[in-house]
Amino acid sequence: MRATVIHGERDIRVEDVPDPRLVTGPEAGGRDAIVRVVASCVCGSDLWPYRGIQPTTEPHRIGHEFVGVIEAIGDHVTTLKPGDFVIAPFSISDNTCVNCRNGFTGACLHGGFWGVGTEEEGYADGGQGEQVRVPLADGTLVAVPGGTPDPALIPGLLTLSDVMVTGHHAAVSAGVTSGSTVAVVGDGAVGLCAVIAAKRLGASRIVAMSRHEDRQKLALELGATDIVPERGEAGIAALKEMFDGVGPDCVLECVGTKESMDQALSSARPGGQVGFVGAPRGGPELPVGQMFVTNVGVRGGMAPVRAYLDELLPDALSGAIQPGKVFDAEVTLDNIAEAYRAMDERRAIKVLVRP
Amino acid sequence: MRATVIHGERDIRVEDVPDPRLVTGPEAGGRDAIVRVVASCVCGSDLWPYRGIQPTTEPHRIGHEFVGVIEAIGDHVTTLKPGDFVIAPFSISDNTCVNCRNGFTGACLHGGFWGVGTEEEGYADGGQGEQVRVPLADGTLVAVPGGTPDPALIPGLLTLSDVMVTGHHAAVSAGVTSGSTVAVVGDGAVGLCAVIAAKRLGASRIVAMSRHEDRQKLALELGATDIVPERGEAGIAALKEMFDGVGPDCVLECVGTKESMDQALSSARPGGQVGFVGAPRGGPELPVGQMFVTNVGVRGGMAPVRAYLDELLPDALSGAIQPGKVFDAEVTLDNIAEAYRAMDERRAIKVLVRP
Repeated sequence: MRATVIHGERDIRVEDVPDPRLVTGPEAGGRDAIVRVVASCVCGSDLWPYRGIQPTTEPHRIGHEFVGVIEAIGDHVTTLKPGDFVIAPFSISDNTCVNCRNGFTGACLHGGFWGVGTEEEGYADGGQGEQVRVPLADGTLVAVPGGTPDPALIPGLLTLSDVMVTGHHAAVSAGVTSGSTVAVVGDGAVGLCAVIAAKRLGASRIVAMSRHEDRQKLALELGATDIVPERGEAGIAALKEMFDGVGPDCVLECVGTKESMDQALSSARPGGQVGFVGAPRGGPELPVGQMFVTNVGVRGGMAPVRAYLDELLPDALSGAIQPGKVFDAEVTLDNIAEAYRAMDERRAIKVLVRP
Repeated sequence: MRATVIHGERDIRVEDVPDPRLVTGPEAGGRDAIVRVVASCVCGSDLWPYRGIQPTTEPHRIGHEFVGVIEAIGDHVTTLKPGDFVIAPFSISDNTCVNCRNGFTGACLHGGFWGVGTEEEGYADGGQGEQVRVPLADGTLVAVPGGTPDPALIPGLLTLSDVMVTGHHAAVSAGVTSGSTVAVVGDGAVGLCAVIAAKRLGASRIVAMSRHEDRQKLALELGATDIVPERGEAGIAALKEMFDGVGPDCVLECVGTKESMDQALSSARPGGQVGFVGAPRGGPELPVGQMFVTNVGVRGGMAPVRAYLDELLPDALSGAIQPGKVFDAEVTLDNIAEAYRAMDERRAIKVLVRP
């Protein structure tokens, strides 16, 4: 089959690789499924190795967001069958260990991540390929009820493998609830999904921090009530002024840089909360003295996608949320390098990839 | 009157100072009360200037925990009257501004702190004296219903000015609720009060981290179910082992050092929460990368004492909680320097001071 392999900085190739196979050894235990990918995409976090900020020491598969159809299952898979249309969260989980039971499937004691490890270990495939072997299929995959969905729904379902759920995790981690006032730092796909999530959870006012006209428009379409284009001190001052001079209840940090986290921490009102989902690279460390004085809490991290899907999937199927709108470009698998380039250069918010 | 004045490192004196007076100017607005102190005490945070870690550039009053009887009130005080027995939170608040309405009275837009500022500004008196002028009396003070309480209740009521409420804030900030598993880092008065708070909020298991036999005993008496004497890596490992190999839901950080915060952050289970109330001195900064991977949240800071008193006062009066047990020594005001010495040398957990 064809699959995407990253070789190094700005070196993305689509190559012939061995077809995935069900692993029957004691490690995998017949719990695999083979999924034929229907749609995948490029994540903001894929840009870290693409840009060389996270070094690539040897070529490996890449991609961790995909939806598809089950082609084959192992002997011990009980909840899925060939032909099921499935959503694959960006992490592999058994959904039974203590961390999964606590709702933190990204910390599954027996799980792992796409594109990491060897085939023997069971985690070799990345999501940006024609097929993927999925270990712990019962725990990891979620079948969409009603079989293959309307093609128009597929982009939205694809966001349930990562960005929509990551935006939701930011909102949940920040404690967004009915009537909350919210600011979203970051106007990428995750930030835009955080706007959707905040609206879905009942926020009374949602400020999107964005300097780009196209993203501002989309944020307003998705549920933002206000736009603040300023950043840094000016952005903090604008938010304070909008909310009683003290700032909003909740700030959703969807970038991961020192600047964005500083801005988020300084924007929330005393006793407010920052929900952060931007993967932090090389810091920042959080100023605990400032947090002590302001009582602004910080919570977040890798979204436990599997744990949220039962809640979010019905709304994506009904159209109550329309996160598929974050895709503003599409390529075929053979042209995936262009998807990386477009996202790297911020020409695209998010690019859908069809095998 | 007599009042405590700190002159520098390990230099605590009791001196004759002017009697406090009701300030009638436009700034104070007739909203003062004069309180005759019945009991006060020394806080762990008073030891920072005592030890010279927080420099004392000029002599000033000190002490921020006291209960007493109202002697006089300003013209615009409406909810209090002379003779009322009152609890004074460690911060001054109007209880009407947006931060107070949000429950964060420590961030009152018009408030302040005892022993800070000049008499003209209205914040000159410290709590360790015979009398205290209380600005914004309606917002700051809470009258104990039923007049002067049974003397046996006074130590417990005194803890409502700070330590009991600070322990409660640690538990609330960590999200302790019915069935939570909890570890408390720190066996000082605040840590012991955090044990009381965790029990009161319904925690199913409460581990007190303590190496001192007398404090271990008291922790067990107050509601701890387990003791872990180890610290650092060994303490973390012990906690992990006790709770499914992953750690407890909630860790209450009641010390404020880099070591204690590191231990708290590394002890909580994935998706758990650290509630911190130890005033951080010179760091630590929080490792956001670790927080991202573990999804352990951090929330806390200065307790909004006034906001919690309506909830906690009835339980202190009924004896449902007995935080007065954290006092294991008592001195008269003239001997307050001995109270500082005893706490500095950890000979006493907490010392009650009677004028």
